[in-house]
Amino acid sequence: MSDQRPIGVFDSGVGGLTVLREIVRRTPSESTIYLGDNARAPYGVRSDEEVLAFSSQSLDALADRDVKAIVVACNTSTAVGIGALRRRYDLPILGVIRPGASAAALASRNRRVGVIATPATIRSHAYFSAIKDENPAVEVYEHATPALVPLVEAGHLAGPIAEAAVAESLAPLLGERDAEGEFIFPKPPGASIDTLLLGCTHYPLLRAVIAAQVGEGMAIVDSATATASALAELLNVNGLESPAGGGPAAHLQLTTGDAGRFHELASRLFGADFPEVEAVDLGVAAG
Amino acid sequence: MSDQRPIGVFDSGVGGLTVLREIVRRTPSESTIYLGDNARAPYGVRSDEEVLAFSSQSLDALADRDVKAIVVACNTSTAVGIGALRRRYDLPILGVIRPGASAAALASRNRRVGVIATPATIRSHAYFSAIKDENPAVEVYEHATPALVPLVEAGHLAGPIAEAAVAESLAPLLGERDAEGEFIFPKPPGASIDTLLLGCTHYPLLRAVIAAQVGEGMAIVDSATATASALAELLNVNGLESPAGGGPAAHLQLTTGDAGRFHELASRLFGADFPEVEAVDLGVAAG
Repeated sequence: MSDQRPIGVFDSGVGGLTVLREIVRRTPSESTIYLGDNARAPYGVRSDEEVLAFSSQSLDALADRDVKAIVVACNTSTAVGIGALRRRYDLPILGVIRPGASAAALASRNRRVGVIATPATIRSHAYFSAIKDENPAVEVYEHATPALVPLVEAGHLAGPIAEAAVAESLAPLLGERDAEGEFIFPKPPGASIDTLLLGCTHYPLLRAVIAAQVGEGMAIVDSATATASALAELLNVNGLESPAGGGPAAHLQLTTGDAGRFHELASRLFGADFPEVEAVDLGVAAG
Repeated sequence: MSDQRPIGVFDSGVGGLTVLREIVRRTPSESTIYLGDNARAPYGVRSDEEVLAFSSQSLDALADRDVKAIVVACNTSTAVGIGALRRRYDLPILGVIRPGASAAALASRNRRVGVIATPATIRSHAYFSAIKDENPAVEVYEHATPALVPLVEAGHLAGPIAEAAVAESLAPLLGERDAEGEFIFPKPPGASIDTLLLGCTHYPLLRAVIAAQVGEGMAIVDSATATASALAELLNVNGLESPAGGGPAAHLQLTTGDAGRFHELASRLFGADFPEVEAVDLGVAAG
């Protein structure tokens, strides 16, 4: 069995491109259609009802293009709506939370994992649940960091602005550091975590800044690699892989926002050879 | 590392004893404390709020007895409250839904799985979600069978009453059969499932009757064996196994209901050598 149709990849904006990049690397013979709902990003500060409605409209557009599977490469959408989305479509739908949670539970040696994500993702406790499902003995410290998606969408991936925002965002989880770089006591509960899970697909773009802030000895885990592996397994187990000799893979990028602006941002984040982007109209008013 | 403390096992009634039996078989050196909330069973027809409140009171009683881990051997309680229960206690807490779902997803060859469970469990879509997490390409048909727990609690495990109740309960999922035993068309969507997941710990006690009804070629999966394996892995991975040479395992049975009635029912279901049962008072009015 094989299946030449493309894989749909959905995110609220450009962050899911970190997942797409790993998918293309891991399964290079698969064609993809990426849809970013940039017109209504970020999702992380919206209500659950809005997140679910916008996600459904976006997945409708991918399903209409005859994809064979969909990766919801948006943590907020996965956290709030993966169950409802799976009941809505006959397609196999993969989220980013379970693969990332499994990787984090396995990475931790002291069984203390910190999770940073958007407010909607944290509110859902989806990472908490998924890590506990992997190993109920792992302690999980969840912390919402709403400033980081706007930071990335504005293109601040390094430099003083990014460093200050990351330090301020992580302080409640890790504690403040003194001039020598030691944590100031009393430490918050999360200060002794040995693994930090980046629970938003935008955050890997800040990995260098985050790594500098948390210091050596902290494992930093994101969902992109783990999700690409889970997708490869899904295709293999269910006979959905592209046929050998089926021609080169094709990649289409869609955005509900401005195509030029998406391309400019994607090029800044992912390199100058980023391919063309098409605007798509979901047939609904922007929220 | 090792840990001699007992494992707590909780169910709304006697059904969780099917899980306890597998735990004792799989990890015979572990001591256990079983708590059945028989005074307020069955949970499956109660509101989510009641299920969560009663489960918390029951787990409080186990936590007070210094258990090292808790198995929520009740599908309804797991479906409704595993996340909230895990946030309430510092103990590793294992549910029965994920292990059973994984086993069912792996057992199905045609990737069509039927799930029967109590109304509260079905309403939560917890099995749907857990099977999709295991393999998003599996189609899941959920069906509530509220008549089966009262049937088991009344001791009807075989004979005409059990057969009629099981046939009536399964018909909406599988379809009616004609005199030759063939399904009558049009079949309901679940009629082509090749795997039936028993999503309630009482149902394995009806396995023979269910097997006769669904016919050969249908894999029947329950959570008991898979949960006992998951518990063994949890203890091993986290260094919580009982020490070698730590003395014989001890097993304590508690019920919020009448100890004599629990013992009589358990003996009928599990054999005449069923050990003594103690009544326990959770310090709350029965619901």
